[in-house]
Amino acid sequence: MKIVLAPNAFKGSLSAAAAAAAMAAGVRAALPTAETVAVPVADGGDGLVQIALANLGGSKRLAPIHDPLGRPMEAPFVWLPERAAAVIELASASGLALLAEAERDPMRTSTFGTGEQIRAALELGARQIYLGIGGSATNDGAGGIAAALGCRFLDAHNNEVKPAGGRLGEIRRIDLSAAHPGLANCRITVICDVDNPLLGPAGAARVYAPQKGAGPEQVAELEAGLANLAAVIRRDCGREVETLPGGGAAGGAGAGLYGIFGAELRRGIDTVLQLVDFEGKLAGADLVLTTEGRLDGQTAAGKAPAGVAAAAKRHGIPCFAIAGGYQDNLDRLHAAGLTAVFSICPGPVPLATAMDNAAAYLQAATEQLVRAAAAMRR
Amino acid sequence: MKIVLAPNAFKGSLSAAAAAAAMAAGVRAALPTAETVAVPVADGGDGLVQIALANLGGSKRLAPIHDPLGRPMEAPFVWLPERAAAVIELASASGLALLAEAERDPMRTSTFGTGEQIRAALELGARQIYLGIGGSATNDGAGGIAAALGCRFLDAHNNEVKPAGGRLGEIRRIDLSAAHPGLANCRITVICDVDNPLLGPAGAARVYAPQKGAGPEQVAELEAGLANLAAVIRRDCGREVETLPGGGAAGGAGAGLYGIFGAELRRGIDTVLQLVDFEGKLAGADLVLTTEGRLDGQTAAGKAPAGVAAAAKRHGIPCFAIAGGYQDNLDRLHAAGLTAVFSICPGPVPLATAMDNAAAYLQAATEQLVRAAAAMRR
Repeated sequence: MKIVLAPNAFKGSLSAAAAAAAMAAGVRAALPTAETVAVPVADGGDGLVQIALANLGGSKRLAPIHDPLGRPMEAPFVWLPERAAAVIELASASGLALLAEAERDPMRTSTFGTGEQIRAALELGARQIYLGIGGSATNDGAGGIAAALGCRFLDAHNNEVKPAGGRLGEIRRIDLSAAHPGLANCRITVICDVDNPLLGPAGAARVYAPQKGAGPEQVAELEAGLANLAAVIRRDCGREVETLPGGGAAGGAGAGLYGIFGAELRRGIDTVLQLVDFEGKLAGADLVLTTEGRLDGQTAAGKAPAGVAAAAKRHGIPCFAIAGGYQDNLDRLHAAGLTAVFSICPGPVPLATAMDNAAAYLQAATEQLVRAAAAMRR
Repeated sequence: MKIVLAPNAFKGSLSAAAAAAAMAAGVRAALPTAETVAVPVADGGDGLVQIALANLGGSKRLAPIHDPLGRPMEAPFVWLPERAAAVIELASASGLALLAEAERDPMRTSTFGTGEQIRAALELGARQIYLGIGGSATNDGAGGIAAALGCRFLDAHNNEVKPAGGRLGEIRRIDLSAAHPGLANCRITVICDVDNPLLGPAGAARVYAPQKGAGPEQVAELEAGLANLAAVIRRDCGREVETLPGGGAAGGAGAGLYGIFGAELRRGIDTVLQLVDFEGKLAGADLVLTTEGRLDGQTAAGKAPAGVAAAAKRHGIPCFAIAGGYQDNLDRLHAAGLTAVFSICPGPVPLATAMDNAAAYLQAATEQLVRAAAAMRR
């Protein structure tokens, strides 16, 4: 029996790789002769580097960069020499987690450090960059990234503007003449797990800037700054970013990366599955197991189990999800190919207990499920 | 696909019959074409009447009886005319639940009402009585039952003793000459789920009398009374009851019924399975599902899922248990034939929530499990 283990992380308790290890132990306990293939996955920017390391055997590189407030530090990315590809998480250089609570200020923060990572990858000869965005401390419309890659933003007096959320309104022109030459031969694929547009009630500033430290007046200024950037991009780069789904991700980084560099924006899980050659790993499998912190039929469309299940369905392989918890409106997930959903919880337990014991619970639930599956297969 | 549903009750939240209904709904949702056979079970006296009604289609009879304190009332039993058999729960006439907290007093309470039920069954022509014991308010060594069936207990002055826990010490002789004639042709099978002996530290008085309202001095007197009864039984009936496993069940009723009437004491689940012809219902089944409130490998030996699983194993049929909760030391249950164990809980929930929603949770868990099982079978 060949079992493909394709867990998503249990946020706050178990990484995807740790989940795969717990599941593999459960399979061994149930059926020592089973062959397992561990393919930890992710459905957004979060965890992308770990997924790449776990699945693709790349090497971790540390790039000297600047944090969202311009302080020097180092941030990792994954280099895949065989593919001439890099995997980068925006949050590793531009994330909210890098700042103290009192330092949060989307007027001042910049994605410059993420641009430095991309530059480091280009200098290794990258022809493809996978950039997971999400968890950013910024609202700069990828201005910082672009600046780090040699793009110049100029104000009404032709003075250079160092982009940050609070300065986007000053920009009158974008000059790409000094952009890094490696960009011409490199495709940037942005992986995001939201589809918010750049502007408006569902846009970057109004939805996300408050949690990054902006007050109401700043939100209005950030919104106006992004609108100005969109207008300049439309004129100087010839791309319409206002209506782009996902353009509002990571403080408008989605819009800026598409608008300035023609990056492709893609939803997370399908890209991740392609990246790890998931379909190839399904060959000959009898069962696919996936996980998710919390599953219900309404919200799961873009989540990892839905993508994993859809792939399993194409190959006619049963796919079970083991979730921290599920709700019983799973029709859409069933239709998408998810055969059945189970909980890791061995009984009535508090959330904190379930999170503390996630690995042991997942191992035990996997063992029971594989015992059941193997018995039915005979 | 034929699925046998053999649930035990979830104590305090779901009867075995209600559990079977919830599971059947779950199977229908998962696999409308599946054939289900509902065989609700029980592993002790508790629920035996309901099990008989649900599985054997007998008729419910009401017998006029006396409660543990001698007050008139009615209590049900099941009459199975085709088998000339009756199914009785001791607790229905002699149970602790019939008394107010302040009325509990094992010195005074009697199993007389249970004897009246047995007499009513004998008068219908019973050749077999299944008596589930447990939950008693009494410590009379089945003296009340025997008295109701015409057995006379005599003291040192040849005066009749009306048996109750506090009067067992007075008994010097047992006179069976006026016992109900139907007893000669009727086999009494006592179904109990404990194996405590009559006397000693694990005996009826010391272990169970305190919860029936006895203080320390009364416990000592009850213990001495049972010891006296055992000695009189040994001499007048020729049976040794002191070492009998289960002799201490229901206030010594196990010992008294064996000692005075030669009743057979059996552990619950196997007798129940035989009673409902469980093996016959397994014919052609692809899967057996059973339930239990709480399962772990150490305590589950005599519980319903263990018996159900052992029968399924003899027929080579996978058997899954769906428990309120389980602990991960299930090796003995696995060895006994239980393929795998799952929880009804769809995630981290408080015990009260799980109990309140037991039917819905069980239905949903059954649906998921049957979906999984059916997919693996293809």
